[in-house]
Amino acid sequence: NSKLRLFSLKGNEPLAQEISEHIGIPLGECEVTRFSDQEVQISIEESVRGCEVFVIQPTSQPVNEHLMELLIMIDALKRASANSINIVIPYYGYARQDRKARAREPITAKLVANLIETAGATRVISLDLHAPQIQGFFDIPIDHLMGVPLLSDYFKGKEELNFDDVVVVSPDHGGVTRARKMADRLKTPIAIIDKRRPRPNVAEVMNIVGDINGKTAIIIDDIMDTGGTMKLAAQALKDKGAKEVYACCTHPVLSGPAIERIEDSVIKELVVTNSIQLPEEKKIDKITELSVAGLLSQAITRVYKEESVSILFDA
Amino acid sequence: NSKLRLFSLKGNEPLAQEISEHIGIPLGECEVTRFSDQEVQISIEESVRGCEVFVIQPTSQPVNEHLMELLIMIDALKRASANSINIVIPYYGYARQDRKARAREPITAKLVANLIETAGATRVISLDLHAPQIQGFFDIPIDHLMGVPLLSDYFKGKEELNFDDVVVVSPDHGGVTRARKMADRLKTPIAIIDKRRPRPNVAEVMNIVGDINGKTAIIIDDIMDTGGTMKLAAQALKDKGAKEVYACCTHPVLSGPAIERIEDSVIKELVVTNSIQLPEEKKIDKITELSVAGLLSQAITRVYKEESVSILFDA
Ligand SMILES: Nc1ncnc2c1ncn2[C@@H]1O[C@H](COP(=O)(O)O)[C@@H](O)[C@H]1O
Ligand SMILES: Nc1ncnc2c1ncn2[C@@H]1O[C@H](COP(=O)(O)O)[C@@H](O)[C@H]1O
Repeated sequence: NSKLRLFSLKGNEPLAQEISEHIGIPLGECEVTRFSDQEVQISIEESVRGCEVFVIQPTSQPVNEHLMELLIMIDALKRASANSINIVIPYYGYARQDRKARAREPITAKLVANLIETAGATRVISLDLHAPQIQGFFDIPIDHLMGVPLLSDYFKGKEELNFDDVVVVSPDHGGVTRARKMADRLKTPIAIIDKRRPRPNVAEVMNIVGDINGKTAIIIDDIMDTGGTMKLAAQALKDKGAKEVYACCTHPVLSGPAIERIEDSVIKELVVTNSIQLPEEKKIDKITELSVAGLLSQAITRVYKEESVSILFDA
Repeated sequence: NSKLRLFSLKGNEPLAQEISEHIGIPLGECEVTRFSDQEVQISIEESVRGCEVFVIQPTSQPVNEHLMELLIMIDALKRASANSINIVIPYYGYARQDRKARAREPITAKLVANLIETAGATRVISLDLHAPQIQGFFDIPIDHLMGVPLLSDYFKGKEELNFDDVVVVSPDHGGVTRARKMADRLKTPIAIIDKRRPRPNVAEVMNIVGDINGKTAIIIDDIMDTGGTMKLAAQALKDKGAKEVYACCTHPVLSGPAIERIEDSVIKELVVTNSIQLPEEKKIDKITELSVAGLLSQAITRVYKEESVSILFDA
């Protein structure tokens, strides 16, 4: 007679199903459809009064549809007297505009945080926010999980890798902390792709800081979108003497030319998580998908039991 | 050296262009596009610092895209130090869930009002909200315009109508006040379609309250969505002896089978406004489109000059 309720919207139903199996309670009954004019129609088919509700919904593509589903679901749960409304957002979209980089730009990462709070969410569980500062955009508690342990463990288990010869590579300056964390787990050094534009309107120079010659490189990033950064980084590593190049990221956005670029690249294998559901046509041989269901299930169970979630970071 | 600025998003650019010509100032430069992953990208190309900004955007189909464009634009304008952010929403989507009709339903009309305020809008101008109570969902000033004068004036100008023989018809109980307002302007009586389900799972009975025999009926509604209500109402009027049936509404949502139903119906002419942009394939001969550009331009100018807007209701 637990008061824990799990609901899935349309963002990633297979992941929600896996989480439900991990935790051992069925997904709540809830129909998410559209009215004839495309307005989101949600009907929750069971009582949530007094319940601790967890809603699983990445704000992945189509992002505006998934975000509105989430906001309307939160509104419905609030009015249905849920005791707490915990939003599990494996991939937090609109994160890349997280500061005013140019005049008159919006800060969508903050806007979306405000919208989620206004709708009535009481807690957020997310994974690898594009910038950790986005945690501060919320005035409600947020548990921020990391993909690095999962990705690292996968590589650790790969028989063919000799870790005396591996180097973890950050594809830009922004990702060095993440690469450092992975390198700590794999006990390897790091390298950084140091992009620089010598003069305006001149092609970028890909300089590499760190020793990669004859080594196996593992590039790590948080989001892989059009694949341009990863493809060029892999090529630069190969050109400068790396033996082979693996790549990994938490969130496979993979829009536009991404799949083609991965196929054409020197990347041997790309390891991603299922924070975002990959459509069948994007499940190519080069891509290995790891599941975050276990990690999210633990977070949900711990939040529900009011146990510390930080232990998940040291796992 | 006016501080008035008009911007259009993607909801109804022809209407915004018309408003700009009425007021005599050009639309502000602003690019509304999508990133590769479909996230909304907005860049405002001119300063709005200290300006009174009016953003024209109906939240019509695709409603989630148009709504997110609006929220992100408001966020950008707020951070760009606009003095006031006035949202002109000719059609306010998500209005039909304006109360909890069933258990665990969201109240999207209130949610959207909250989202718009949270983003940072300082005033709303709208037209024929599905329920006038939605005004109270906002804690910022809202000017609520009406389509009845425009629609009435169109029929008044029709030479072939003999107003001694005209009756204005509400297609349901909810719309009687609107029908009464139109009848006042046309100096005609009203009638009401009084739908009733005698027992559960038995077809609805279309009863007509009021005298329509041998008369020209003009049905008025606020929104016409799939066209079912209008088509059945027109048929019932014809069956009970109306000579001919006109129909009119402010907001031509016209989703799903609407166009087909209008073509197949006994409706002689359907008069709508351009609060929602009609795609070319919906511009059929039976539909007459009136422009709300004049009305909205007057409202914008009056708000900007801090003059009373209520005069527009008595025009
Ligand atoms: N969905 C998106 N796709 C690509 N670029 C984006 C997106 N959202 C924001 N940006 C841009 O990416 C920049 C920040 O990207 P990053 O280097 O990933 O932090 C910002 O200046 C944004 O203009
Ligand atoms: N976009 C929509 N299309 C059709 N029906 C809707 C829509 N939004 C809400 N509704 C339903 O319409 C009912 C109210 O409609 P109304 O009679 O027009 O006030 C509510 O009970 C909603 O479930």
